[in-house]
Amino acid sequence: MIGVGRSLANLERAVELGVIDQISSDAAQAAAGADLVFVAVPVQQTEAVLRSIAPHLRDDALVCDGGSTKGNVVAAAQRALGGRFAQFVPAHPIAGAELSGVGAASASLYRDRLVVLTPTDATRTDAVERVQALWAACGARVVRMDASRHDAVFAAVSHLPHVLAFALVHQIAQRPDAADLFSFAGAGFRDFTRIAGSSPEMWRDIALANKDALLIELDAYRAELDRLARCIAEGDGEALARVFYSARSARQRWLKK
Amino acid sequence: MIGVGRSLANLERAVELGVIDQISSDAAQAAAGADLVFVAVPVQQTEAVLRSIAPHLRDDALVCDGGSTKGNVVAAAQRALGGRFAQFVPAHPIAGAELSGVGAASASLYRDRLVVLTPTDATRTDAVERVQALWAACGARVVRMDASRHDAVFAAVSHLPHVLAFALVHQIAQRPDAADLFSFAGAGFRDFTRIAGSSPEMWRDIALANKDALLIELDAYRAELDRLARCIAEGDGEALARVFYSARSARQRWLKK
Repeated sequence: MIGVGRSLANLERAVELGVIDQISSDAAQAAAGADLVFVAVPVQQTEAVLRSIAPHLRDDALVCDGGSTKGNVVAAAQRALGGRFAQFVPAHPIAGAELSGVGAASASLYRDRLVVLTPTDATRTDAVERVQALWAACGARVVRMDASRHDAVFAAVSHLPHVLAFALVHQIAQRPDAADLFSFAGAGFRDFTRIAGSSPEMWRDIALANKDALLIELDAYRAELDRLARCIAEGDGEALARVFYSARSARQRWLKK
Repeated sequence: MIGVGRSLANLERAVELGVIDQISSDAAQAAAGADLVFVAVPVQQTEAVLRSIAPHLRDDALVCDGGSTKGNVVAAAQRALGGRFAQFVPAHPIAGAELSGVGAASASLYRDRLVVLTPTDATRTDAVERVQALWAACGARVVRMDASRHDAVFAAVSHLPHVLAFALVHQIAQRPDAADLFSFAGAGFRDFTRIAGSSPEMWRDIALANKDALLIELDAYRAELDRLARCIAEGDGEALARVFYSARSARQRWLKK
């Protein structure tokens, strides 16, 4: 198990923790001879990383990723891997935490969590099956879907909420009385904004990589806020209560599943 | 300790749990002879409840509340209590949970939590001190502030996030593919929307009671979303990253305190 990364301290800690066996500063060298390459980088860097390793991959090497967007990753892999594209299995493990670095690693992180694979018609069937088996071995439930449907779904249930949480904290942090405001923020604020503790670089990349789907969601959400602001301005308590009740019961049904 | 409420089952459970000693269906009767009256109702009902008990209050009775908005509660108390207004101490305990009913009661809920008192110039000093001592005995840190500043602060750090969470869940729940979308929602979505599990009636009342401050916050937030949507549309990764970094570090500084 060879680890490649930008932070030597993080890699050294990974060796200490037994997460990797060896450190390499050269992705191409590390990939040469590898059975399996797992690319875990902010999604906009996927293409450059794949391009650097492509010439060194074995014929039977398996390449996969863990990026939160898939349309752009598939396109990047097509461009970067050329003839090796059939060996690439795009994947999105759904187990968010706002923490970064190997210190946040957990062997049980994927237990009973979803992992979405978005293979294309060109992806080798045995490659998909092996990656599926790898995730299942971590305890995950694996589903397959089309990359563009994946991106639409996650724009709605993940990418939009992240942007909303970052926006709320930023909007308050900018004010002259920010310290006073924060001093009265409670548990609701803490949970609502937990995802605003996530990696800014990773989320910048996701927002740009899934731009089209995210903008559709942002538009729908802003229209919803416009409607709610109108209800509040007009004192339409009945309409407000309808929206709040519908949201609460939808969330309760979801939690029961 | 006499409990008055709408749900007999909830009151009977409160007796079982030792939270109250007796049940009454008549607030006026229960308040007659009381040393202390604690009004815990959706804020728009405060005035009617205070009006019903006002003629029955003892001269030395203490009246307080736990409403999330204070400007409207103070105004309601002024109208409803008349000469007894000086005995009323407006309070907002900051310990949110999305649960309702006595089954969700916890003796340690207020330990190390903030309670904001918003007395007016007319409020009796000894009344404020007694209510402050009561909350301190529950483990809370008590602060005092002006009702209108309170409402502005909580519009920003509490009322707006609640509306945003309700809006997100409602917006998804309305779609034909809602079930599919929810099936891919993960831990980030769960925490972001936890407050959308809160009482719809209570939050309708808060939104309307604190309308002016909440609309100011909604406007500021919508302007922030407009700016972010523009950054995403234009592919301005630098501006996006700046917002995300600023949000993350502001949140981290807040958590450290």
